[in-house]
Amino acid sequence: MSSDLREVVHGAARRARTASIDLATATRGTKDAALVAAAEALVAATDRIVAANDEDVTAARDAGTPENVVDRLRLDTARVAAFATGVSDIAVLPDPIGEVVRGSVLPNGLRLTQVRVPMGVIGMIYEGRPNVTADAAAICLKAGSAVLLRGSASAARSNEVIVEVMREAVASAGLPADVIQLLPSEDRASATELMKARGLVDLVIPRGGAGLIRTVVEESTVPVIETGTGNCHVYVDEDADLDMALDIVVNAKTQRTSVCNAAESLLVHRAVADEFVPRVTAALREHDVLIHGDPTFIAADASVLPASDDDYATEYLDLEISARVVDSVDDAITHVRRFSSGHTEAIVTGTSATARRFTLGVDSAAVMVNASTRFTDGGEFGFGAEIGISTQKLHARGPMGLTEMTTTTYVVEGDGHVR
Amino acid sequence: MSSDLREVVHGAARRARTASIDLATATRGTKDAALVAAAEALVAATDRIVAANDEDVTAARDAGTPENVVDRLRLDTARVAAFATGVSDIAVLPDPIGEVVRGSVLPNGLRLTQVRVPMGVIGMIYEGRPNVTADAAAICLKAGSAVLLRGSASAARSNEVIVEVMREAVASAGLPADVIQLLPSEDRASATELMKARGLVDLVIPRGGAGLIRTVVEESTVPVIETGTGNCHVYVDEDADLDMALDIVVNAKTQRTSVCNAAESLLVHRAVADEFVPRVTAALREHDVLIHGDPTFIAADASVLPASDDDYATEYLDLEISARVVDSVDDAITHVRRFSSGHTEAIVTGTSATARRFTLGVDSAAVMVNASTRFTDGGEFGFGAEIGISTQKLHARGPMGLTEMTTTTYVVEGDGHVR
Repeated sequence: MSSDLREVVHGAARRARTASIDLATATRGTKDAALVAAAEALVAATDRIVAANDEDVTAARDAGTPENVVDRLRLDTARVAAFATGVSDIAVLPDPIGEVVRGSVLPNGLRLTQVRVPMGVIGMIYEGRPNVTADAAAICLKAGSAVLLRGSASAARSNEVIVEVMREAVASAGLPADVIQLLPSEDRASATELMKARGLVDLVIPRGGAGLIRTVVEESTVPVIETGTGNCHVYVDEDADLDMALDIVVNAKTQRTSVCNAAESLLVHRAVADEFVPRVTAALREHDVLIHGDPTFIAADASVLPASDDDYATEYLDLEISARVVDSVDDAITHVRRFSSGHTEAIVTGTSATARRFTLGVDSAAVMVNASTRFTDGGEFGFGAEIGISTQKLHARGPMGLTEMTTTTYVVEGDGHVR
Repeated sequence: MSSDLREVVHGAARRARTASIDLATATRGTKDAALVAAAEALVAATDRIVAANDEDVTAARDAGTPENVVDRLRLDTARVAAFATGVSDIAVLPDPIGEVVRGSVLPNGLRLTQVRVPMGVIGMIYEGRPNVTADAAAICLKAGSAVLLRGSASAARSNEVIVEVMREAVASAGLPADVIQLLPSEDRASATELMKARGLVDLVIPRGGAGLIRTVVEESTVPVIETGTGNCHVYVDEDADLDMALDIVVNAKTQRTSVCNAAESLLVHRAVADEFVPRVTAALREHDVLIHGDPTFIAADASVLPASDDDYATEYLDLEISARVVDSVDDAITHVRRFSSGHTEAIVTGTSATARRFTLGVDSAAVMVNASTRFTDGGEFGFGAEIGISTQKLHARGPMGLTEMTTTTYVVEGDGHVR
């Protein structure tokens, strides 16, 4: 079985590689036409997609899946329309392929140009949200790469229809359908084979919970970009505008809790703790946030639970937060370096030197100065499309758009130059 | 033993992390002063370095090490002076840290800046050349990262002295000595522990033979940049200037054979085979190159051996080459895509459309048009320093200089912005 599955995955990867050669040399016009056709076809197929999704949802409920997970799986007309619009929006974005990254004439007269080119074949391993299927396929297509989609078994019927519809549309625009392929998902081994297909697949991106991401990072021999886990901190400095700090903490924690850029931990400078801790504790309680705090927070409110190191390390993704008083910005930096997942940290301060110290001292993909952690997002940053948020330092760090899905090649032109 | 070694490696990585925080915020002036001090100290310590190296060389010869490997290990006054100059040359290069990669004001008034920052802790795993020790330490220091050096056991005595001298110089310039550390090399497990130290080490770069690189790529959980293997092709098109083609083939194959950018395979368009194959065969024979060729090459010269697919896949690193006649540029592209390691390919042609087709069609880090493959090199490209040549597509592709040893962070400044 496993060797059959290997052949299935390798076969798909080889077809993707062949298809990617045509895609790599396709003009922007052809790619954009394929995206527009795919968006229109998805809207036209709404009933089929929702019907297939109904079967996935029924099966998930029958299997006892929690309702919040079922909700991520569920599609309706509005959700299909939303991801179809996402696909056509990508057609409007500039084409990253062909961009000259740097160029010069070398002392010996060689003309050196570094040009942006497609990655080739990208594997996506993700969980139950079927909108990721359309998003990822569209972003990879625009970036000139073929994609192998390995979604969740729970969304298999939805994904099959979405991929079938997009493949037909892509083919109608004159590109090989095999630039978008769905891998079987009933067996975990198909994901493993994808991660191990070094030489056939150029990049694997896991999107989902911490467990999925850890597995991919540990098992993959194909280069990986780690995404998503966000144990994000807000540090309220002694020189903070405390009204602003209150708004930012409440927004970062409560505006949307299930996302990676939500705040999970609050650090407050001791000099403002007497004033700020009672205020922020009351405000968070008003939003039904459970606080795991140090003794100062417990003294401010009897409902605060004592915080352990485990709490400081936890990405709650819920109405919960850990909280601690620190003695200085350097203490805050030390805490962040110890517990952060390297996604986003925020500082609230009126002093630019302190902001600069915090920015240089923490080691994260994004640092917000006097702004909510919630702004770390490809859409907010103006990238137009986002395939995930990288929390590693290699290749891409922070929100990843089209550019991050490409690589470069050096073209060197001479007149018979030899060494 | 293995768990002791784990503690040794993890302890070194933690010290490197702490030291890297000071290094990350050091000014260019401090870093350059440390590099100049290190270069001077290496020259001053020449006798000690050469004496330690003599012991390494004697032990290697006693162990029956082949002379070409011993030569790579061997240091003399001139070689020490050469790598010391390399270290001081890096002081002259611009500092990549702090470069603003992009910046804009978002529609909501947030000020977004993507800034180049250090990688943090870089692990180098390499073989017997002790000059790599000084090179890698200097490049990482300038790029603001601490380095963990895991060299060959055969060079342990040389590496110990080089690292000791550089650490003292770095400390004298006011930086923590622990930004440069040598890991024990007598046990293979220290390399394994380094590759598995995800979270403590940000990047591992293997430099050496294909076997070493494959092991690191397969076993590492720390992100890796694959370097070095070069099965480079020269394609002589029907529209080539055949005198130019002859010069380029001979140069690419024979000017230096043990390097990754030497040519290993020759493809000749059928339309010029009658004229070119006998000429190139004779010229390569004059340089004592053994040819593994197809029937056309065998017909041209009785000394040509028949080429197998294994030959086409081989990086000889010696006076040997595989050779084949192809029917078209597309045939050449198909051959290259099948057998190349993705390092460097060259085309010799007078037709720009053909050059463009080849450039887009092959999938390699560098493509030379009418120039020798030997030009793929950080020094030739004007990077000033090179830590290796990446043959993967993630993060860096082609020669890697200081910029490729860094990552970026997004700094976002607001005035109390919330979503």
